[in-house]
Amino acid sequence: LKSKLPMVGTTIFSQMSQLAAQHQAINLSQGFPDFSPDPLLLDALAAYSQQGFNQYAPMPGIPALRAQIASLVQRCYQRTVNAEQEVTVTSGATEALFVAINAVVQPGDEVIVFDPAYDSYEPAINLCGGKAVHIALTAPGYRINWQQVAEAITLRTRLILVNSPHNPTGMVFTPQDWISLQQLVLKHNLYCISDEVYEHVVFDEAPQLSANCFADLAARSFIVSSFGKTFHVTGWKLGYCVAPAALSAEFRKIHQYVTFSSFTPAQHAVADMLAQQPQQVSGLARFYQHKRDHFVNVLHASRFTLLPCQGSYFLLADYSAISDLDDVSFCQWLTKEHKVAAIPLSVFYQTPPTARIVRFCFAKQDSTLNAAAEALCRI
Amino acid sequence: LKSKLPMVGTTIFSQMSQLAAQHQAINLSQGFPDFSPDPLLLDALAAYSQQGFNQYAPMPGIPALRAQIASLVQRCYQRTVNAEQEVTVTSGATEALFVAINAVVQPGDEVIVFDPAYDSYEPAINLCGGKAVHIALTAPGYRINWQQVAEAITLRTRLILVNSPHNPTGMVFTPQDWISLQQLVLKHNLYCISDEVYEHVVFDEAPQLSANCFADLAARSFIVSSFGKTFHVTGWKLGYCVAPAALSAEFRKIHQYVTFSSFTPAQHAVADMLAQQPQQVSGLARFYQHKRDHFVNVLHASRFTLLPCQGSYFLLADYSAISDLDDVSFCQWLTKEHKVAAIPLSVFYQTPPTARIVRFCFAKQDSTLNAAAEALCRI
Ligand SMILES: CSCCC(=O)C(=O)O
Ligand SMILES: CSCCC(=O)C(=O)O
Repeated sequence: LKSKLPMVGTTIFSQMSQLAAQHQAINLSQGFPDFSPDPLLLDALAAYSQQGFNQYAPMPGIPALRAQIASLVQRCYQRTVNAEQEVTVTSGATEALFVAINAVVQPGDEVIVFDPAYDSYEPAINLCGGKAVHIALTAPGYRINWQQVAEAITLRTRLILVNSPHNPTGMVFTPQDWISLQQLVLKHNLYCISDEVYEHVVFDEAPQLSANCFADLAARSFIVSSFGKTFHVTGWKLGYCVAPAALSAEFRKIHQYVTFSSFTPAQHAVADMLAQQPQQVSGLARFYQHKRDHFVNVLHASRFTLLPCQGSYFLLADYSAISDLDDVSFCQWLTKEHKVAAIPLSVFYQTPPTARIVRFCFAKQDSTLNAAAEALCRI
Repeated sequence: LKSKLPMVGTTIFSQMSQLAAQHQAINLSQGFPDFSPDPLLLDALAAYSQQGFNQYAPMPGIPALRAQIASLVQRCYQRTVNAEQEVTVTSGATEALFVAINAVVQPGDEVIVFDPAYDSYEPAINLCGGKAVHIALTAPGYRINWQQVAEAITLRTRLILVNSPHNPTGMVFTPQDWISLQQLVLKHNLYCISDEVYEHVVFDEAPQLSANCFADLAARSFIVSSFGKTFHVTGWKLGYCVAPAALSAEFRKIHQYVTFSSFTPAQHAVADMLAQQPQQVSGLARFYQHKRDHFVNVLHASRFTLLPCQGSYFLLADYSAISDLDDVSFCQWLTKEHKVAAIPLSVFYQTPPTARIVRFCFAKQDSTLNAAAEALCRI
């Protein structure tokens, strides 16, 4: 069988999690919490399943969950979205990204992505016959130069894919970033996919912004988020896409043939959480800011140079004071020799910079972060 | 946004289920059980979730579930498959079908499908730039004329998509069908997607066959099945694909960017069921045969002419003694006036035959089937 994705191997997240397991290393590589979600969420899951909610959910998601998503968007961004026509529940944000890309990208289209870029974007674009145009962001700030973006736009550019808070760098868009993005999208009649899975994890009292806050941008955007990140259940694979009715209609045409619908009891459980425990969402930034600060503190004595982290649950660390190894080799060495797994940054670049930087996930119990820091400080 | 699927509307299953709800009709349209799954399955779901299995499953599925799938294939078809390399768990059979099509179909490729064809096949093919070549099957037997298939094969044919037991007709492949399929696949170097979601629902002591039973065919096949059908939990969206290592490798490259992984607690719960309750699977044919026979019995006094049903949980009924309406109008009328929802057959054809036939789902409690039959017999 001729491969349609000859450049693709096993995703780095699976590779590193496997290596971590193999070497009994503390796994700060793949992004997932090692602590429990709220017991109320698990009780609700069990209850809905026991009560008989085990058959197909409606294709766009159960109405109660879509209504809660619309309320959440209203609460966080003061935008009114129509739950009936503009919200679609998906099997994880990954599905939402894949479907949104498929809804827009035609053969020959160009899509602007920012490196380091989440590794699912480009294969999805390529499967549609599109081409990813990479703009590299660099340490320490990983800020976007919007003039450079403007220059990268051609007649074939169809879509810009942004991600704020940004995985893996923790960079968060300023209001000016959003405005610049909006200007370019409008000027060139582009579409936007805004990957906002860490939307509720913005630190240091910065305003929580979103494509939802900019009406003209939102009118041309697929806004993607994830309950796995928000409720600490990455294995639940529940995400969603908010887009204007006409875009959602195209999104749903594809979603209905990709997965059709998502795990029914989880939709009910998450709808209840959103309705009854809104502080779970509004308190998330503070919860993770504490973890970030704690992790930064306990790493203070190490020879890593920590980069700023404005949001997400990832922290970048420069290891050039420790080793000359390239980052992939360094991550393997770190896992095998020091029993801490991290993610190399170069794999997210088309043209990797020479920087020696790795990513740690700090969505972990303090005891896990302490143990990891102890090992890392010994190096 | 220019539509990539201009011909696609809302799937007939959503349409009819909505119409049924609106008119408080008995819903024999969309295929799903109205009875409870085994309580052990639900208890296992709750237990695994409470015990902390809520983060990402491994991308190809948890090892325990893949091992159970391999055992099931061994038990049912005496084929040894490698759970590590040849089995991939997906978010429903729908995802498995979508991914398998994406793994194989390149722009310009032709795919042979048999009408009436499940409605997700063609959009998935079209999104890859492929073309569905339709071969129409007709009442009452809906048998495939393999000579006709041979004549439909061109230099661009890349894939044959088969489905036995067949939805919506209940037709089941004979050993000779499988052999003819295998011959064509080998002779023309094609690939096969074998949609076997009703594999365990074969009636009247007919042998349970599968692409798994034919080694040369299996070597070029993506075999797709569904735990939603087997364990009466269509809302759990858990399916899988069995394919040789090289094909599974391509399948996984795409799966990892479509959904990455599927709902973790459900994978554990289903693995336990397969290990501890194998009779749930082996008894499924008898369970549904009883329902088929019961439904046929209670419809005896009606003016519908029932077609043979060799497998699946669907029964076709010819209504030409009742009405001259086309089948879409007839289904609407039936839902509104007689409070029973069914699925029209013509929507599954590229060129619908003039037959007046609709599909009833009999995966329902006997009381539901009785109430529906009462209404249908009054017409
Ligand atoms: C789907 S596994 C990747 C999890 C994640 O988002 C990350 O680690 O960046
Ligand atoms: C995904 S909804 C369709 C369910 C089904 O398989 C059918 O009714 O044929």
